[in-house]
Amino acid sequence: GVHGTTADLSRLVPYMTLLGILAASFISIVDIFTHVIFEARKRVSVDITHGAVGYVIYVSSGVLLCLLSTFVCQQWSKEAEGSGLPQMKSIMSGFHDKLSNSLAVEALAAKAVGLICAIGGGLPVGWEGPNVHMSCIIAEYLSRIPYFHSLRQDKALRLQMMACACTVGLASSFGTPIGAVLYALESTSSFYLVPTFWKSVLATISGAMVFDIWYKTPVAEAFENTTFGPDDYRKNQLILFCLLGSFMGIVGAFFVKCTHEVYQFRKRRLTYLSNRFVLVGVVALASGLTQYNNELLRIDPRKAINELFSSNAMQLMTYSDVMFLLLVKFPLIAVCVGLPIPGGVFISSFLMGAGCGRLYGEFLRTVLGPSIVPGLYAVVGAASLAAGVTRALSCSVLIFEVTGQISHMMPILVAVLLSVTVANSFNQSLYDTLIVMKNLPYMPNIRGDVFLSQRVSEVMIKDVVTVKERSSPEEIGTLLIEYPTFSSFPVVSERRSLLGVIRASQLRFLIGGSSATAEKLHSGADELPEGSFQDETFRNQKISPRPVGVEGKSNEKKSREILIVPELSPLEVGDNMSVGQLHNMFVMLMPTHAFVVSRGELVGLVRRGDIIQNVVDVGS
Amino acid sequence: GVHGTTADLSRLVPYMTLLGILAASFISIVDIFTHVIFEARKRVSVDITHGAVGYVIYVSSGVLLCLLSTFVCQQWSKEAEGSGLPQMKSIMSGFHDKLSNSLAVEALAAKAVGLICAIGGGLPVGWEGPNVHMSCIIAEYLSRIPYFHSLRQDKALRLQMMACACTVGLASSFGTPIGAVLYALESTSSFYLVPTFWKSVLATISGAMVFDIWYKTPVAEAFENTTFGPDDYRKNQLILFCLLGSFMGIVGAFFVKCTHEVYQFRKRRLTYLSNRFVLVGVVALASGLTQYNNELLRIDPRKAINELFSSNAMQLMTYSDVMFLLLVKFPLIAVCVGLPIPGGVFISSFLMGAGCGRLYGEFLRTVLGPSIVPGLYAVVGAASLAAGVTRALSCSVLIFEVTGQISHMMPILVAVLLSVTVANSFNQSLYDTLIVMKNLPYMPNIRGDVFLSQRVSEVMIKDVVTVKERSSPEEIGTLLIEYPTFSSFPVVSERRSLLGVIRASQLRFLIGGSSATAEKLHSGADELPEGSFQDETFRNQKISPRPVGVEGKSNEKKSREILIVPELSPLEVGDNMSVGQLHNMFVMLMPTHAFVVSRGELVGLVRRGDIIQNVVDVGS
Repeated sequence: GVHGTTADLSRLVPYMTLLGILAASFISIVDIFTHVIFEARKRVSVDITHGAVGYVIYVSSGVLLCLLSTFVCQQWSKEAEGSGLPQMKSIMSGFHDKLSNSLAVEALAAKAVGLICAIGGGLPVGWEGPNVHMSCIIAEYLSRIPYFHSLRQDKALRLQMMACACTVGLASSFGTPIGAVLYALESTSSFYLVPTFWKSVLATISGAMVFDIWYKTPVAEAFENTTFGPDDYRKNQLILFCLLGSFMGIVGAFFVKCTHEVYQFRKRRLTYLSNRFVLVGVVALASGLTQYNNELLRIDPRKAINELFSSNAMQLMTYSDVMFLLLVKFPLIAVCVGLPIPGGVFISSFLMGAGCGRLYGEFLRTVLGPSIVPGLYAVVGAASLAAGVTRALSCSVLIFEVTGQISHMMPILVAVLLSVTVANSFNQSLYDTLIVMKNLPYMPNIRGDVFLSQRVSEVMIKDVVTVKERSSPEEIGTLLIEYPTFSSFPVVSERRSLLGVIRASQLRFLIGGSSATAEKLHSGADELPEGSFQDETFRNQKISPRPVGVEGKSNEKKSREILIVPELSPLEVGDNMSVGQLHNMFVMLMPTHAFVVSRGELVGLVRRGDIIQNVVDVGS
Repeated sequence: GVHGTTADLSRLVPYMTLLGILAASFISIVDIFTHVIFEARKRVSVDITHGAVGYVIYVSSGVLLCLLSTFVCQQWSKEAEGSGLPQMKSIMSGFHDKLSNSLAVEALAAKAVGLICAIGGGLPVGWEGPNVHMSCIIAEYLSRIPYFHSLRQDKALRLQMMACACTVGLASSFGTPIGAVLYALESTSSFYLVPTFWKSVLATISGAMVFDIWYKTPVAEAFENTTFGPDDYRKNQLILFCLLGSFMGIVGAFFVKCTHEVYQFRKRRLTYLSNRFVLVGVVALASGLTQYNNELLRIDPRKAINELFSSNAMQLMTYSDVMFLLLVKFPLIAVCVGLPIPGGVFISSFLMGAGCGRLYGEFLRTVLGPSIVPGLYAVVGAASLAAGVTRALSCSVLIFEVTGQISHMMPILVAVLLSVTVANSFNQSLYDTLIVMKNLPYMPNIRGDVFLSQRVSEVMIKDVVTVKERSSPEEIGTLLIEYPTFSSFPVVSERRSLLGVIRASQLRFLIGGSSATAEKLHSGADELPEGSFQDETFRNQKISPRPVGVEGKSNEKKSREILIVPELSPLEVGDNMSVGQLHNMFVMLMPTHAFVVSRGELVGLVRRGDIIQNVVDVGS
């Protein structure tokens, strides 16, 4: 069932706690390594050596690290490339089986090492997507521990486990448990089971404790709490924040478009960059060459964000520095999204938004006087650009947690809502765009009335392979040979009434009773002598214990028939149901297929994929 | 469809904005009146008059106001009694039709006037439940505006509208938009459609603006932001917060039990209090008598909470004052929950929790020294007692918004999670208890494995009233007379295959072709002369335009038959599906019933209520 039973609690609580601790620890370790490499490279090339030597060391070490990142992904798991959030989103929408490679331990290793090298190598990639991906792989392997097997077998619980893993990954990225819960709610599932709520809170708190301990150690940068006063925001400024939010929505949509275009352009035109190493090498070279001479571009994004959010005047940067940063970073980040290395985009959009907001705030301060606090505009800008890219309203909650202040929620909420609305009028979110770019299976939301009026009978597959309730072993055998990839078959009565579904393995077991036949079938013999089934003794020896699904018929008939008792009760729908309703069922109940019944007879089959095809055809 | 189509946006956005503004304005006005009456009563009895005269005025005005509150509820709408949240929770779980009285304008009037009188009269009742109720009624009436009719017709959208109204009501109660969104998620629906998210955020922001403007006016108390420093919480204190959280969980569960026991005791034993006016009069008298001499007990709960949350030493109260407050208020609040007046319990549990936490913090400060900040313990206590009573994890987010500080989230989150876990091990949440107490229809979550293994065939109703695909008007007429309350009938073929569902009104329309017959049927004529249907001309004249569902049969047969084309495609399930799966479908897809099909034949019917009955039998 979808709702965890009481008996499950003794497994669920340790599972979620362990998941939180393990995933957060793993992510913390990756973060430490990233930071160490990032700092070591800077120290060797800037503090120890100088000038041309330092330049060469800085650039070459960056290129080498990025190439290593590419190499690791190519060798261990190509699933580790990119953000990972799109894959997880796809898994959440019910395609667990099709993306099992993404949850392999090779992907975890490649993602971790690749991420360390990519960020250490100086590319402006984020870590929140990879963290989510790593967290999900850890959840997957944790569930393979025998004690947790019963959780794993429940499809709904398994989905919840993934949702919780997403939450932990996000929470560990920025230390934002509540925002992460909301963000996972928004971005990974089109519906949300309330029982997931406490589980993800538990997992996230367990993770946050690890994160809390480690982030108080001095090795890494942490986000600082902001200290805006009660007078830093006045109501008459709300219109200024609205303008900022709308503008960030446009920038966000533009960024998504750029990412898509860059990816398309590279795939189609730049064939000489089709080699992944050449591609990453060139980008890393460009990144290294521009970064070395400018301390600004080498800065840890968290440090830069703290600076931009500050309620006082900026210490490290001037306004022209911020503008320069934006102009250089924007194209570089857009290019990096599609590279064959692990890397997210959230922190980058956060940084860009904070930069834009600060510039806007400083401009307003010059024009309107000291009642404007530019740091607050930076905060609003960061939240709304992140929202414009990801289309998640929960970016507002993330920023409350990042800044530790919730007292100025009004401008942030309004700006984020406007940003999402404006951006949505242009295109889809970055993650949905990546899903399309990478051809991942996904259950889209329906938009447009056309689709809803279509009938199920118009989209169904009409030729359904069935097995009759009373079939001879020969018939079953032929069926299994003809459709070796089918994992289950619908069982129908004489009148083609749908009785249920039986797994192929169970059918094999049923006819396995006469192993001779089975062997003959497997060796490709089409014509079977009838006598081979008549040896009752032989048969009874083989079947022990006698399977539930089998009832030997009396020998009156010529060909012996097996009565197949179906194991599973499938989803049945009437043929005049609207596709909209069926889509609803697919989203809610997450079956892989539904059988279409008309006048009591099985007339068709609609698979999850058929609905998607249909949505794409309509062009939502 | 569940997902709003693009065309709907032009209606949804104005609807949600209007809902937010209207509901928040209405709630604000009620709040102003409450405050004015509360203050006026205090001024007249304390500042203008003194001693015995003041005492008499204070007590008698309180009793009169409370009696007025009771009178208003009795006269206008008994649905206005109590919190209102349980009714809304019931509506959200799919019982819109059964609780339409709760959404009538009379209930709105009674709730508003009753709430003003009850709080003005000095009873320690909260306003968040009534606010939610009033907001939902406003949402209902707003949807009756012709422009919004199309939204109203979509069952899923209607549900989302209610969820958004809940959010606005909660957000307006404390000025906590995000917490309200989460709280509505947790407490009103067992699953949550992500498309509700932006709608509720939009409605809440619109409402928050109204609230924001009005709360900056000096008339009412507002929650003050807390000002805890970064050193006010140290990690080694976490265990102390855990203890507080667990204890608050026990207190919360105890409070729920007390409420229930008081209610039961009153119903069974105190028959002389069965008159609602006597009952409310006695409680109001007791409340007035204890309050007058003690300024503490007359204080606005918001003011008291601000004081308890303060990071400095308390100005208005001493520790013994706090203890006295708790001892007097606790039983009074438990009694007030079941009174026939409007009133919630959230703010009261907030206050009690803050008091307990402050006492605990002050005690710890005495023992462990100045590193303990008692105000922080008061905050944690408030959040965790509210969570212990309502079992909502989102109480943590509510408190972040109430205090305007999120930097000390760790102790709050951990304490709230512990409180909910501990309290859940004792009993159900207060709202679920009230649902049971008031016999409201509700779709409970399934707990316990027993239930899941039962088959649908064991719980279904076997005698389903059907209409044959080809029926004579006489047959249809007889059916309609026999089952006048049925709103629809399943249509079956000769072989009892389920073809679909037809509404009774449509059936009436079909046989209405010969109005003479219909009239005769209505006048109760059982035996009809066959000739009355043979007049073809007469029939064709009457039916214009010819309804889709009718196909005239040739005159070959003796008795004319009508071919019924079903309108709706119902939910069909196999008879060996588990009840757990079916429950899932009921929760997710919210049908009122499902048809059970076996071997292509209609064999039974399961209504929403049958599942509930079953759950109650198992005793979850």
